[in-house]
Amino acid sequence: MSEGLNILLLSCGTRNKIVQYFKKELSGIGQVIATDCSELAPALYEADNHFIVPRMDEEGYLDVILSICKENNVKAILSLIDPELSFLAEHKQSFLNIGTIPIVSDYDVVEMCFDKYKMYQFLTRNGFKTVKSYIDKERFYNDIEVGVINYPVFVKPVKGSASINISKVTSKEEIELLFSRFDNLMIQEFMDGIEYGADVYIDLLSNEPVSIFIKEKIKMRAGETDKSVSIKDKELFELIYNFVKKAKFKGIIDIDIFKVDGGYYISEVNPRFGGGYPHAFESGVNVPEMIINNITKNVNEDIIGRYDEGVYMMKYNELKITRGS
Amino acid sequence: MSEGLNILLLSCGTRNKIVQYFKKELSGIGQVIATDCSELAPALYEADNHFIVPRMDEEGYLDVILSICKENNVKAILSLIDPELSFLAEHKQSFLNIGTIPIVSDYDVVEMCFDKYKMYQFLTRNGFKTVKSYIDKERFYNDIEVGVINYPVFVKPVKGSASINISKVTSKEEIELLFSRFDNLMIQEFMDGIEYGADVYIDLLSNEPVSIFIKEKIKMRAGETDKSVSIKDKELFELIYNFVKKAKFKGIIDIDIFKVDGGYYISEVNPRFGGGYPHAFESGVNVPEMIINNITKNVNEDIIGRYDEGVYMMKYNELKITRGS
Repeated sequence: MSEGLNILLLSCGTRNKIVQYFKKELSGIGQVIATDCSELAPALYEADNHFIVPRMDEEGYLDVILSICKENNVKAILSLIDPELSFLAEHKQSFLNIGTIPIVSDYDVVEMCFDKYKMYQFLTRNGFKTVKSYIDKERFYNDIEVGVINYPVFVKPVKGSASINISKVTSKEEIELLFSRFDNLMIQEFMDGIEYGADVYIDLLSNEPVSIFIKEKIKMRAGETDKSVSIKDKELFELIYNFVKKAKFKGIIDIDIFKVDGGYYISEVNPRFGGGYPHAFESGVNVPEMIINNITKNVNEDIIGRYDEGVYMMKYNELKITRGS
Repeated sequence: MSEGLNILLLSCGTRNKIVQYFKKELSGIGQVIATDCSELAPALYEADNHFIVPRMDEEGYLDVILSICKENNVKAILSLIDPELSFLAEHKQSFLNIGTIPIVSDYDVVEMCFDKYKMYQFLTRNGFKTVKSYIDKERFYNDIEVGVINYPVFVKPVKGSASINISKVTSKEEIELLFSRFDNLMIQEFMDGIEYGADVYIDLLSNEPVSIFIKEKIKMRAGETDKSVSIKDKELFELIYNFVKKAKFKGIIDIDIFKVDGGYYISEVNPRFGGGYPHAFESGVNVPEMIINNITKNVNEDIIGRYDEGVYMMKYNELKITRGS
């Protein structure tokens, strides 16, 4: 059993940078422990200690993770993949009972993020501009007819992460084809504008958003930000602050926003470390430190906007090599 | 003007590892110089020296590159992107005239690689098994009817790299829709089997394939190998050797192969460093060294199959940060 301030990162996958950042921050005071269901998750090998665990949907998964927490004196736990956020939020109390703090928003909030139509309804109900969305294709055809929306539009699953199964369509014919082949689809307006990503940290003790880092996305690859540049905008900071308070997020989240004709439209939220978070860290926005502050009962000060503008981030491939056993 | 054994990598993009490998090999004897049309190409910043150049399709591009070669005493030049391979091959003599060796196959060979239907014809004409391909959809419908091929099939552009615009389709209706929307499409059999990638070096002096590294692809991402494991297979080494000799490739190439029901099917060739080459390098297959041998007039020895089996490669994202000027 290891002493100290140990943090467990679940489903670490290819998020090597996140493991590295925690390791740097915990140096001398605690360990980073990582898990994944595959031994081909390269981030496992960055951690101080790692475990190969069953798949999240297998029976007994919760017990395996609770055991790892107990045996390794884990003070805080995070997951880096979407489906596991619901799991962590659902079992928050089981973790708290053994002295492990799950860094995650509440269950209902997490679930809303993964249902694009529920999020759309929340945003419009609360007066935030967002991307026009339809689950009823007849209502959509009607809006096309009266000119409220125009082709092209996106057809995508109501639930589902990354860009899987997303189709840009230009005709009723294609929509009918997609709706006949797949269930639970929705139609979403195509936003022709600038896309932003915001990495936001909501203090776990004060419930205040204490850090907002905004990057303009320059290039995407496989649904992830590949190149971006840091920007600041007072109006956008305020919008994000208000939205995050209203939706009651907790910990680290990532928000996608479009700017079209000068207006900001909130698109979606990943209630976890986003794929572009390394840009924020390398620009001085140290979320692992904020998490450590919180789990050691220290409230974080407000550092919204305290970073440099015009810092460019470019991703490239690094690799881990292992030899088969 | 720098002396020594300098190598120029054109359109370096995000190929940081390739720049690093050349730099390591040239340490003390020469420099790596990199170019790109965008200053957001992270590999630029790995090189000993770099230049931002016009886009390849802009007038005067050849003169710009020739000048860089002359002024920097460049001994060999490679490109890391497909369209530029034709350019390099086309202007081979202009580079040779100033003492710079283009590491690339001949023009006709390069062009064949970028025309999937020409490659299909070459392979079938020479008795190599390959993926069934159709540019005539009526011929395809006929083969469907008689059971020579079955749905699903891929519809993709005859020319074009990566997975852009590729659609897996299951009906005549979808094929008609795609063919009505896009030109120059072809229909390709869906191969349900194991996919391999081979990194092959063909000696520039002996014209012999001297190195073949084979990896089984475990996971793809955005058209690139994300995880793979090294394998050896005598039959596959022989098949690749024969194909490469027949097609008269030169320098470094990357071949995609499927194994279905025990048979090997050649799918396509990238006549350049493939995105998965770092796996070969990290397993001991040092192509930069072979290139340096060749440009210093040394023939490489045959090292086909001289690497370890069961070496796993896993990619993850690293990042470069720059500050706007």
